[in-house]
Amino acid sequence: MAVAEFDLIKRFFASLPQHGRGVGLGIGDDCALLEVPEGQQLAVSIDTLVEGTHFLPGIPAEQLAYRALGACVSDLAAMGAEPAWLTLALTLPESDSDWLEGFSRGLGEGMAQYGLSLVGGDTTRGHRALSLQVHGWVPKGQALTRRGAQPGDSIWVSGTLGDAMAGLDQLQTQADPDPYLLGRFYRPSARIELGLALREIASAALDISDGLLADLNHLLQHQDLGAELQLAQIPLSEVLLDRYSEQQALNWALGGGEDFELCFCVPANRRQQWLEKLPGLSVSCREIGAICREPGLIGVDQQGNRRPMAASGYQHF
Amino acid sequence: MAVAEFDLIKRFFASLPQHGRGVGLGIGDDCALLEVPEGQQLAVSIDTLVEGTHFLPGIPAEQLAYRALGACVSDLAAMGAEPAWLTLALTLPESDSDWLEGFSRGLGEGMAQYGLSLVGGDTTRGHRALSLQVHGWVPKGQALTRRGAQPGDSIWVSGTLGDAMAGLDQLQTQADPDPYLLGRFYRPSARIELGLALREIASAALDISDGLLADLNHLLQHQDLGAELQLAQIPLSEVLLDRYSEQQALNWALGGGEDFELCFCVPANRRQQWLEKLPGLSVSCREIGAICREPGLIGVDQQGNRRPMAASGYQHF
Repeated sequence: MAVAEFDLIKRFFASLPQHGRGVGLGIGDDCALLEVPEGQQLAVSIDTLVEGTHFLPGIPAEQLAYRALGACVSDLAAMGAEPAWLTLALTLPESDSDWLEGFSRGLGEGMAQYGLSLVGGDTTRGHRALSLQVHGWVPKGQALTRRGAQPGDSIWVSGTLGDAMAGLDQLQTQADPDPYLLGRFYRPSARIELGLALREIASAALDISDGLLADLNHLLQHQDLGAELQLAQIPLSEVLLDRYSEQQALNWALGGGEDFELCFCVPANRRQQWLEKLPGLSVSCREIGAICREPGLIGVDQQGNRRPMAASGYQHF
Repeated sequence: MAVAEFDLIKRFFASLPQHGRGVGLGIGDDCALLEVPEGQQLAVSIDTLVEGTHFLPGIPAEQLAYRALGACVSDLAAMGAEPAWLTLALTLPESDSDWLEGFSRGLGEGMAQYGLSLVGGDTTRGHRALSLQVHGWVPKGQALTRRGAQPGDSIWVSGTLGDAMAGLDQLQTQADPDPYLLGRFYRPSARIELGLALREIASAALDISDGLLADLNHLLQHQDLGAELQLAQIPLSEVLLDRYSEQQALNWALGGGEDFELCFCVPANRRQQWLEKLPGLSVSCREIGAICREPGLIGVDQQGNRRPMAASGYQHF
């Protein structure tokens, strides 16, 4: 069933429960009016997903919305920011109310999980695509950036890596995909709690969207540094290792991307503080290596063999 | 020539001169970090333009960028907000450096005109489309919203109406389009100066994107009010009247949209203050009617004949 733009916004979006603070004026005017609490910096990030490029045409609308939101909020987590507001630019070939209902449900679920309010957007007709901009805040000077890693800092990652790519593989090749791996692809968890905990700990941080090696390289290249990774320490889930060879699992973990876990560096003088915080977090974190002065990425296997690794990640063009 | 995403951002976007204040961290991290000045509310608006739906495939990239930015910044003008930051989500079928160079030039020109910094974005491959989010600020409590018009308020519009639609018509039907009308289509002027001047004057305001009648109706429907328009007062440019019949000109002015002029209401007790400000503005403004208690839109011609008018504007779906 086709619905006109204003009805569509009212029915599927303006009625969603709102969770973010500081909204002076939300959907329905020329702009939203928002208030950043005193002493905080605004953190913003925009992401676009295009059908056929970033998601398969058949993906259920609910999963698409939830996944897109998680991927975008993950950028706030990587800055140590607290989520607050969301804008959505949605392009659809037709205004199909079944599809919109599913999309709205998935979006609403994610908004509740991350504490977001939908404050504005645009709906247009065209090839299916969506742009999401998330807005959050972080106390001035406490944001986690990509610049700041120093030789000797330990390198950590959250959760397990490679699961999302395995989930996509399951989706594309298995009649009965593994539910855990599928869930890791469809329902990434933006590590907000971890980002907040790292504010006064990490020297640098980012989220893993293009692949561990490619993303880690973003941390290194600003300062012309290198990293040594203990390959046996890369966290792999039991299900991943059960379903795939260790080699395949490690390849996805290093190069696959889409996991939306955090990768961060901890300086030696904050290590103790970090180790004391760690057990109180709901996500596991693993130390996987160290920053070194010599540029380049080196993998070290269990036998102590060292080999250079290429930082090739997902190329958008 | 094809360029990879990181090179593309560096070459065409990150190098653009920046004009907005309060940028703690711009392009190149997971999020941008921004500072809203104390006592100000953040105003945000996102717009999407899709090739084939909102712009013709052949539009020069420079014009597309400049026009898209003007249309989006117009939402800040309509709130009485001062422009500060921009994010851009750009989807392209290929990374054509000629096209990108033109787009970057048009964007840079608009950023300079409106005092904006480009603080983040996303580039993706797919059907050509762009989403722009503009961010500005306005002193708390002084924003111009769509709610606030009262019976007896006079209704005003800036500039002239109908030119943009005439420009589009010229583009589509004339081998040698009129340069003034074409310019009004390609190069809308967001009325920032006027929006700032109206902060303590207007009871309600919005920008004319869907058409005067449709947009005016947004001001009325919240409060179940009506409006009476003096049709002879609708501002039409000399060029428009020279090239088209008066009827055609008026039809475009009332229903055409895309002019990005402001429509606003002035209460009787601030009329004097407004009339004193008016001559100091660089844009002309015309009083075109008044808000009345009886719902509906009434057009009054020079003979005093009254007829109801339909508020049909552009339907996005």
